Amino acid sequence: RRREMAKSTQLIDNEVFRAYATYTAIVLIKMMLMSLVTAYFRITRKAFVNPEDTASFGKGESAKKYLRTDPDVERARRGHLNDLENIVPFVGIGLLYALSGPELSTALLHFRIFTGARILHTFAYLIPLPQPGRGLSWAVGYSVTFSMAYKVLKTAWLL
Amino acid sequence: RRREMAKSTQLIDNEVFRAYATYTAIVLIKMMLMSLVTAYFRITRKAFVNPEDTASFGKGESAKKYLRTDPDVERARRGHLNDLENIVPFVGIGLLYALSGPELSTALLHFRIFTGARILHTFAYLIPLPQPGRGLSWAVGYSVTFSMAYKVLKTAWLL
Amino acid sequence: RRREMAKSTQLIDNEVFRAYATYTAIVLIKMMLMSLVTAYFRITRKAFVNPEDTASFGKGESAKKYLRTDPDVERARRGHLNDLENIVPFVGIGLLYALSGPELSTALLHFRIFTGARILHTFAYLIPLPQPGRGLSWAVGYSVTFSMAYKVLKTAWLL
Repeated sequence: RRREMAKSTQLIDNEVFRAYATYTAIVLIKMMLMSLVTAYFRITRKAFVNPEDTASFGKGESAKKYLRTDPDVERARRGHLNDLENIVPFVGIGLLYALSGPELSTALLHFRIFTGARILHTFAYLIPLPQPGRGLSWAVGYSVTFSMAYKVLKTAWLL
Repeated sequence: RRREMAKSTQLIDNEVFRAYATYTAIVLIKMMLMSLVTAYFRITRKAFVNPEDTASFGKGESAKKYLRTDPDVERARRGHLNDLENIVPFVGIGLLYALSGPELSTALLHFRIFTGARILHTFAYLIPLPQPGRGLSWAVGYSVTFSMAYKVLKTAWLL
Repeated sequence: RRREMAKSTQLIDNEVFRAYATYTAIVLIKMMLMSLVTAYFRITRKAFVNPEDTASFGKGESAKKYLRTDPDVERARRGHLNDLENIVPFVGIGLLYALSGPELSTALLHFRIFTGARILHTFAYLIPLPQPGRGLSWAVGYSVTFSMAYKVLKTAWLL
């Protein structure tokens, strides 16, 4: 038992893996916060999608009018979905990349640029900033993930 | 080779990792079942989105009328998307948490509460239960993931 | 430090894990390409959702008419979401499966069939092929993931 416990903690003692764990936790928390942003806009804009969510506003027509879409709610939801589409590949490919033995400085560069780009992307989406602000921040994160995928395939390739 | 094979199986011999593997498999299977729920409602409610999916109902207008949205289908789809938004962070942060050396009892508590909360959330969404049933089950799973993220960042922090 | 580095690279030296890394990188890259497909259709069909994305087409009504949905854009987006719903469980369950000590040939069979099925699914969705082409390719990938989940639960079961 003791030897197993010791072994399982060694991965987290590896510096590249610790860096991966830190930035993955940060971007996943950032993604989770999108749920709160959506909830905030749903409540302040009174725009819901489930009838049971409007029951506290009364019954019948008085509640039904809050079953509607709102531009701010939809914008937050699109930002959340874009996070899923981009952060899921980062988490999966990033794990394999961290285990493929990169230099710590190179790994940190990848993780930091991706995390910064996704935080910028969120602000660009929610404010919103004029294009190409959002597009560029998306493209930077996307490119970082591709760069890590290249390293993974070069190291692990076994088809 | 033999030593490597032995090494790779040791992670799954670690009890915390085995608990993580068990609950992650369960919640991911639960999420996958949402596809079947959506398919069930699409077929029984005859509500499809792709023209090629209604070809068996005949051609032209007779098939076109089944290209429509249905409240039950949309509800199942929202439940599925909510699973993606919440189970993805659990799987990613949970892996790092399992590798950060927590007590088995503490880890089991996290995994069990999260899994129970997400199963409750699915029933609350599909039945549907009156609020705050769905909201509370969502908040419990959300808080468990944050608690694991806190442990990960405390253990691994390398910015 | 040196011993830790060596340890962390050993996982990627394990053949089953290398196969997992290869196919996971491929399916995640495939999923990421759906963003480019969607972007291609948005630009060629001039169908956008964010007002700031149409600013280059001029101001007022001349730009507003491009804020619309397009069948090809929506089709690409559905394919992308279907990837998320199916590739996320593969990546999560596949990692646990790769660590559960399967035979290399059995593991390769799972990874290859899943990857092939998801590539077929994308073509079936985008062309589109008549049903049951898309349905079958979806079902094959779905079944492979269940088969891996069964192995994970049989090996790791600790509730």
